[in-house]
Amino acid sequence: MTAPTPTRDDKFSFGLWTIGYNGTDPFGGPTRKPLDVVHAVEKLAEIGAYGLTFHDDDLFAFGSTDAERQTQIDRLKGALADTGLIVPMATTNLFSPPVFKDGGFTSNDRQVRRYALRKVLRQLDLAAELGAKTFVMWGGREGAEYDSAKDIRAALSRYKEAVDLLGQYVLDKGYDIRFAIEPKPNEPRGDILLPTVGHALAFINELEHPELVGLNPEVGHEQMAGLNFAAGIAQALFHGKLFHIDLNGQRGIKYDQDLVFGHGDLHNAFALVDLLENGGPNGGPAYDGPRHFDYKPSRTEDETGVWDSAKANIRTYLLLKERAAAFRADPEVQEALEAAKVLELSVPTLNEGETVDDLVADRSAWEDFEPESYLGAKGFGFVRLQQLATEHLLGAR
Amino acid sequence: MTAPTPTRDDKFSFGLWTIGYNGTDPFGGPTRKPLDVVHAVEKLAEIGAYGLTFHDDDLFAFGSTDAERQTQIDRLKGALADTGLIVPMATTNLFSPPVFKDGGFTSNDRQVRRYALRKVLRQLDLAAELGAKTFVMWGGREGAEYDSAKDIRAALSRYKEAVDLLGQYVLDKGYDIRFAIEPKPNEPRGDILLPTVGHALAFINELEHPELVGLNPEVGHEQMAGLNFAAGIAQALFHGKLFHIDLNGQRGIKYDQDLVFGHGDLHNAFALVDLLENGGPNGGPAYDGPRHFDYKPSRTEDETGVWDSAKANIRTYLLLKERAAAFRADPEVQEALEAAKVLELSVPTLNEGETVDDLVADRSAWEDFEPESYLGAKGFGFVRLQQLATEHLLGAR
Amino acid sequence: MTAPTPTRDDKFSFGLWTIGYNGTDPFGGPTRKPLDVVHAVEKLAEIGAYGLTFHDDDLFAFGSTDAERQTQIDRLKGALADTGLIVPMATTNLFSPPVFKDGGFTSNDRQVRRYALRKVLRQLDLAAELGAKTFVMWGGREGAEYDSAKDIRAALSRYKEAVDLLGQYVLDKGYDIRFAIEPKPNEPRGDILLPTVGHALAFINELEHPELVGLNPEVGHEQMAGLNFAAGIAQALFHGKLFHIDLNGQRGIKYDQDLVFGHGDLHNAFALVDLLENGGPNGGPAYDGPRHFDYKPSRTEDETGVWDSAKANIRTYLLLKERAAAFRADPEVQEALEAAKVLELSVPTLNEGETVDDLVADRSAWEDFEPESYLGAKGFGFVRLQQLATEHLLGAR
Amino acid sequence: MTAPTPTRDDKFSFGLWTIGYNGTDPFGGPTRKPLDVVHAVEKLAEIGAYGLTFHDDDLFAFGSTDAERQTQIDRLKGALADTGLIVPMATTNLFSPPVFKDGGFTSNDRQVRRYALRKVLRQLDLAAELGAKTFVMWGGREGAEYDSAKDIRAALSRYKEAVDLLGQYVLDKGYDIRFAIEPKPNEPRGDILLPTVGHALAFINELEHPELVGLNPEVGHEQMAGLNFAAGIAQALFHGKLFHIDLNGQRGIKYDQDLVFGHGDLHNAFALVDLLENGGPNGGPAYDGPRHFDYKPSRTEDETGVWDSAKANIRTYLLLKERAAAFRADPEVQEALEAAKVLELSVPTLNEGETVDDLVADRSAWEDFEPESYLGAKGFGFVRLQQLATEHLLGAR
Repeated sequence: MTAPTPTRDDKFSFGLWTIGYNGTDPFGGPTRKPLDVVHAVEKLAEIGAYGLTFHDDDLFAFGSTDAERQTQIDRLKGALADTGLIVPMATTNLFSPPVFKDGGFTSNDRQVRRYALRKVLRQLDLAAELGAKTFVMWGGREGAEYDSAKDIRAALSRYKEAVDLLGQYVLDKGYDIRFAIEPKPNEPRGDILLPTVGHALAFINELEHPELVGLNPEVGHEQMAGLNFAAGIAQALFHGKLFHIDLNGQRGIKYDQDLVFGHGDLHNAFALVDLLENGGPNGGPAYDGPRHFDYKPSRTEDETGVWDSAKANIRTYLLLKERAAAFRADPEVQEALEAAKVLELSVPTLNEGETVDDLVADRSAWEDFEPESYLGAKGFGFVRLQQLATEHLLGAR
Repeated sequence: MTAPTPTRDDKFSFGLWTIGYNGTDPFGGPTRKPLDVVHAVEKLAEIGAYGLTFHDDDLFAFGSTDAERQTQIDRLKGALADTGLIVPMATTNLFSPPVFKDGGFTSNDRQVRRYALRKVLRQLDLAAELGAKTFVMWGGREGAEYDSAKDIRAALSRYKEAVDLLGQYVLDKGYDIRFAIEPKPNEPRGDILLPTVGHALAFINELEHPELVGLNPEVGHEQMAGLNFAAGIAQALFHGKLFHIDLNGQRGIKYDQDLVFGHGDLHNAFALVDLLENGGPNGGPAYDGPRHFDYKPSRTEDETGVWDSAKANIRTYLLLKERAAAFRADPEVQEALEAAKVLELSVPTLNEGETVDDLVADRSAWEDFEPESYLGAKGFGFVRLQQLATEHLLGAR
Repeated sequence: MTAPTPTRDDKFSFGLWTIGYNGTDPFGGPTRKPLDVVHAVEKLAEIGAYGLTFHDDDLFAFGSTDAERQTQIDRLKGALADTGLIVPMATTNLFSPPVFKDGGFTSNDRQVRRYALRKVLRQLDLAAELGAKTFVMWGGREGAEYDSAKDIRAALSRYKEAVDLLGQYVLDKGYDIRFAIEPKPNEPRGDILLPTVGHALAFINELEHPELVGLNPEVGHEQMAGLNFAAGIAQALFHGKLFHIDLNGQRGIKYDQDLVFGHGDLHNAFALVDLLENGGPNGGPAYDGPRHFDYKPSRTEDETGVWDSAKANIRTYLLLKERAAAFRADPEVQEALEAAKVLELSVPTLNEGETVDDLVADRSAWEDFEPESYLGAKGFGFVRLQQLATEHLLGAR
Repeated sequence: MTAPTPTRDDKFSFGLWTIGYNGTDPFGGPTRKPLDVVHAVEKLAEIGAYGLTFHDDDLFAFGSTDAERQTQIDRLKGALADTGLIVPMATTNLFSPPVFKDGGFTSNDRQVRRYALRKVLRQLDLAAELGAKTFVMWGGREGAEYDSAKDIRAALSRYKEAVDLLGQYVLDKGYDIRFAIEPKPNEPRGDILLPTVGHALAFINELEHPELVGLNPEVGHEQMAGLNFAAGIAQALFHGKLFHIDLNGQRGIKYDQDLVFGHGDLHNAFALVDLLENGGPNGGPAYDGPRHFDYKPSRTEDETGVWDSAKANIRTYLLLKERAAAFRADPEVQEALEAAKVLELSVPTLNEGETVDDLVADRSAWEDFEPESYLGAKGFGFVRLQQLATEHLLGAR
């Protein structure tokens, strides 16, 4: 079987910290040596990616002098120019250095909060300079281990204050940048603020410029709360807030695994690709931003394994895209969707122009309706539909 | 030690389905006989509750004739009059009968959706008649087991259509009723729509009359997703959406246990009562609605156990209220909160009137700031604070 | 693509309670009418099953008279004779009736324990009469919600007493029956005794006749504890204790879903079938007992969906068997297994006859060994191997 | 209220890696500077500990020369002599350096396995020299992320080979040391071998010298699988295998938190202390080994917080011990235990000398038994008992 081949139109991008992950985890140090950014860009171009993303501290070490920082920026620019890769997204690190041990925007320590804002402003300038259209904010240290350690409402107020200020800055500067908040339930904090897609969506509604801010959901983060990722993405789309996406794999509720996309919950990955590519049952494009892989090459691998794993992300995505197209095109699937009334859900419950009074007057909706007819009959055929999806996923139809 | 005694000002309420739970679970039938509503009201009055809540189908069986229904309503009214109990909240059952096997408001079957709306309208009239101020909506069957079985965006549109219609009805009728959506991540469906406090908060913002709709979060439901319940309540308060609350106990991520309040995560129950009663670190009342227990007396119990468990809910709440008051009053706690800068988080990050430009011009926020001073120093003392909380919780201070 | 067709040699069996599940769950009553046992046997034969299994209370209602019981037994025997189906396994229900509200073998109530033993003895006789070779014991009610409610050590002693007695009975009677304990972590009890494969294996070692007792692990039960099912099965095989198996699907840590096999964690289902059929990397048959499906047709389905779901179990198993065979046969996979040293793990760590002293004298194992050579090199290629597995699973190679 | 004061008889011990934890986690580097072992021993003596434990690599860095290693050993010995502290347990690190990226005893790489054995043998000699009676083995890297990467049966065979060799070594040398295996379900590997107390207990039965090997269960590790820790400890005691214990706190199924003991599931911590101190409902000492704290001072803390957190562990344990004693002494609790038939579970189900035939002949156990009498009656009063436990825990009785 021929492997599907990625093109730049597929918009595959990788974080510099993903392929550059050195293997450090809570119980062990590095198993790989540092990866140079120029080499990284060259290899990504080779495997078919179109974009590189990065935190400030990925490109130049925290505490770099201005000259060190500029050297790295220049090296990155050179590599981008040489390969044609772009930087569709940039982000900032408010979680690694000790100064952020209680967070950045919501640290109890006001001096830290002010410093955090300055760090982000600086990275925003760089993001704009490099042409990034999305600025991701993962507030991994914004949270607490203990309930009395953090006044959650005050923390949300400070979070809002920070995002409002950044939004104003982008407007003032005329940057063509939107923000994308990345939710996560826990790790490295016991509980993180804005733990799920839902909490972040709700928060955005309180901002001065909600139109500037959307989401960057990550597969594994929602699954760490046992939530259905594809369903969460669908809700983000419902609110018009899917600004960016982090694809990876997670095997259930445990520590953040950051596996290759498709190496976790394969059924849900299939549903996700179907949603992103085909817009779900009723079709239409649903998301046209970068397909960004935020994963970690397993600590057991050397550099060969790094690039094998990078390619695995792309390859699995493209295979699932093929499977999803075949699923949608299968007449038996169409028939099963019809039988399961999946498309009927798009029909409004009320007739056009129907009022509450009209509904109350409709005897077929109550007085003459026979709820008992649903006992032992009128099955939805959902299991058949799931089996058709399974067989398409298995390449068996 | 004297037990704290409940008064009606404490606003303790119970669902008729809680004390009336007959013990049925996925692997066994009833272990208790039906509980009559009049008896239930009398006993609740006796143990110090101020309110009873109910689903339509709790009071009169699904499929009752109008006469049967009216008899039960009259019996309830009589008992309320005799005891002085009120009905602060009512709700509806769109999940038990087979007709709702794929949900009510978002069933793929449009006829079912229309029928569901009629059922709710009828129960809304009864809620208004009984003086309920809150109408809870738990959409336990609104969801799916399989990703292709439900078009999530269409489902959210239908959900919105339903809630908008109900809101309009309440406005039209002039009812003094607000709606409270109760999130739950799963069970009885594989994944439920609006799975967490956050997702429901986000959804409310899309409604025609968001001011009419808030939340009824349940302790165990958020904990089934591994989320911090007290933190979720704080975010609901941040958005002004804590309209009602369901108190119970859950021991981790598993099936919905509905244990007695305090028989689950005791630390978080302490933080919750502190928040509800004292408004958190900065004080002020935070919630003045009913303290509603939505729990199940364990299946191992007979009727004696039912009332023992009902009293246990109240007693634990009042004990935690005492503990929380002592915690807040302890000078050492105040000192530890200060040391941990918990109150400093209420101070805006920007100075009054400070602009981004001002911040960028402040050398103390960046150029002269010394992030390395946080290594090995400037600890927050959060563990000490948590230990103080633990010792107050244990009644040891 | 041609569908793989089941034969009786595939040894597919179903519980009478699986296809007979009426849809009752914690939040709703039946959505399907009762399924007659004769009809069930006929349909199972039609779809390619070779066996039916049952609890006593599935076949004849709890509390049946002897005559009612016999009628049902005779009807079952007739259907078996007509279809050629067999009863490879039988089991007993010590969890549904109120008498077992605190368990059967380990109820705090000694009278209940004695009654439970009698119920099991009676069902053992029937199992022997019907030719069942395995007697499964799922102790779903053996447990507690509260730590002080159950003396766990006493409970394990009573459990042992019960299993020892049953073992003696089987020996006395000369029955050709072995017992298989089915672990589960929780639901319907807050915590269940012998919660995992491991706990049950350990328990068996304390029995009078450990050789008579093995395991009946269930996919979803281990996954409810976040454990790797295929790994658990491998440990059960390591101990020689895989006496029977319950195949189904579960989507993460939540209530017991009992989905169709393969409709949960598909990667792990693939690994499991590979293990059962091919004996893992080093080959050889690993398990030749029944492939027993213990699942529930979703509550949304009518009888058509019941049989569609039954067939889906079989079909997915057979597809995964094909995929696993192709995976093992692929030279690139063999090469990758070699590169990842998967087979090297079967080589003992010590040389033949090597003693500790020899090992200590081997300078290549310590003094001359260069652990630093593993930094940035000597990667295992596990991600490549997983990608090969993924592509075989997707039918893409 | 006077704080309970620890004595050396309480046998509180701490790992050098616990108080020495520098704050590194998956998303950030150190927030604290290294802690010197001599200072650590002095401080531990000051707060009332009786013992220090350590991995080889805690005391001297991996790759130390013999001279560097000896210097550190001598410094430790000096501090022990000065303070009177002992080393009740030692352990080894087979998880941090890159050489162990696929594990130690079960690495696919045979050379690594041999090297791992040598490393452990060396540390065993040191353990014996320092008088440690227990040698803990946490196989944190023994596992896999991917099902095809590890032949689980071969891995268990290699695990057995390693433990058998170590047992033989201890016997040969005449060391007074027993081994304690520490189970963990996942993190840092996707799935770890011997994931729970149960799996490890089962494994021990396959060893050459099972009497030499027991368990070192850790609170948080079992809770990461959603298992009841106190129940697991009770099963370990049932098998006579509780050789050591790791006390800490965990808030549900998520990454390994290593909080202070009692800062996680407080109800279960209460049950655990009751079990360890009072032997459960029927009394008698249950465990007399070290009360070992394996926790991490939160990353937000500086050294003051380190010692505050160390003291918090001790203080909470002693408070729970007081609460448990009061619980057992309360006549109302005794009466409730009686009513709940908790003690009746210690009475064998069979009468003395009763055979199966006798049981079958006992009409009161079946023919005359009335199971229906349990419907609506014969409640166990478990909720009342749990409420009594709760009130004792809260110090409210």
